[in-house]
Amino acid sequence: MIPVRIPSDHPRAESLHVREKLVQAYSNGIVATSGLIAHGRGEAFDYILGEKTTRPARNAIEVAAAILLTANSPVISINGNTAALAAKDMVRLGAITASKIEINLFYRSWERELAVKKLLLKAGAHDVLGVGANASAKIPELSSERRRVDPKGILSADVVLVPLEDGDRTEALVRMSKKVIAIDLNPLSRTAQKANVTIVDNLVRCAPLLTKVAASLKKKGHRECEKIAHDFDNGRNLAESIILMKNNLSTLAKAELAGRR
Amino acid sequence: MIPVRIPSDHPRAESLHVREKLVQAYSNGIVATSGLIAHGRGEAFDYILGEKTTRPARNAIEVAAAILLTANSPVISINGNTAALAAKDMVRLGAITASKIEINLFYRSWERELAVKKLLLKAGAHDVLGVGANASAKIPELSSERRRVDPKGILSADVVLVPLEDGDRTEALVRMSKKVIAIDLNPLSRTAQKANVTIVDNLVRCAPLLTKVAASLKKKGHRECEKIAHDFDNGRNLAESIILMKNNLSTLAKAELAGRR
Repeated sequence: MIPVRIPSDHPRAESLHVREKLVQAYSNGIVATSGLIAHGRGEAFDYILGEKTTRPARNAIEVAAAILLTANSPVISINGNTAALAAKDMVRLGAITASKIEINLFYRSWERELAVKKLLLKAGAHDVLGVGANASAKIPELSSERRRVDPKGILSADVVLVPLEDGDRTEALVRMSKKVIAIDLNPLSRTAQKANVTIVDNLVRCAPLLTKVAASLKKKGHRECEKIAHDFDNGRNLAESIILMKNNLSTLAKAELAGRR
Repeated sequence: MIPVRIPSDHPRAESLHVREKLVQAYSNGIVATSGLIAHGRGEAFDYILGEKTTRPARNAIEVAAAILLTANSPVISINGNTAALAAKDMVRLGAITASKIEINLFYRSWERELAVKKLLLKAGAHDVLGVGANASAKIPELSSERRRVDPKGILSADVVLVPLEDGDRTEALVRMSKKVIAIDLNPLSRTAQKANVTIVDNLVRCAPLLTKVAASLKKKGHRECEKIAHDFDNGRNLAESIILMKNNLSTLAKAELAGRR
């Protein structure tokens, strides 16, 4: 990979830096080929979203933090892209919310598992579930290696946070009666639609915010968290994200017409 | 790369097949790492567009064909993703419109140039410009290897078709007073905005259509083509694509709200 010089005044420098980080993690065997394509899809949705954390995203972040804090056995599921972009934040979130950290790769390989585990330990994790023979349980109705989960982790969890998950797995977890919190820039994806709480935001932006909100809510206590989690309507919140994107496109179309006339 | 079995009844089987084709070309050294991310961005915009060739795209295709047919020295610029997804169509279009074929890679390497050239020759090309020392001229104001062009091709062309081009290069070509025809699924990209004619469509869908339209327009003669090219307003046409995307999001937001209530 040829390194790219990104001028600091480039209008989309932030997005390009994140991309470089991901490509670097790809060379290190942490990110899969399909993870690069998935990242591109996210970039497009983020662009239409205005590359900022929206009000519905802030709502979902608060609810997600409240649910993690009141769960009996929460687990944060880590794949290659999440490890590459937000390992430290996820480990910190795990510590604040007493959530276990489990590696869960769509394309499992011993080498990738170890590379991701190494990164998580370096980010401060004490215990990393789902590696090798520990991922001995199976999610029903899923084929191949991606159904493997850790009996001490996702299998027995009541709440699972899945940043950047695929639709089949999200659906399978929901069918197992787990509460699923997803982070997904595409409000139209099956993951976004099937999850109980969907944070439509860039993982790089929302991970530190989620951690901060969790730390602050923790001080307010269990009952306050239960109240926040109770009244949330994910469908309505998703629709708000879609409407924001629609409005952004509307503004851009008007600018296009005005600029050319 | 682990091959993925795509069920033929999968709602997005077509898109997944195209993705597999690109990943295959990536393993063969034709597509660059950044080409995978770029493809992901395209997938997202295509999804919002409804994964079909729209009316404004058909307009732009007709105008593009007319401009290529009336050009003095048209060139089709081929990068890794274009070669992977539409080599045969681009060679056929070159034959119909008497356009030269030039390889123009963002990340140039001798190996990639040769791999792309081999693919183009296999697709029926007779002469492939822009390879190795033949790309001896430079586009002003562009840094590094991506400014290199062939004096017999892009440097002396009056019209350049750039499927899947980056913004800097498109701008540079426009500043050199070349008429630029772009194929880009993102109507908001700098390439889409700066080009003289922008086809907002999936390359896989529009390449055969562009070839067919060119063959049919060729029979109608030069004057008819000039007439078609004359009255086109790219800004207005782009705005129509953006409005279509906006309307699709609107419909999806309504479905989301209706389904959850």
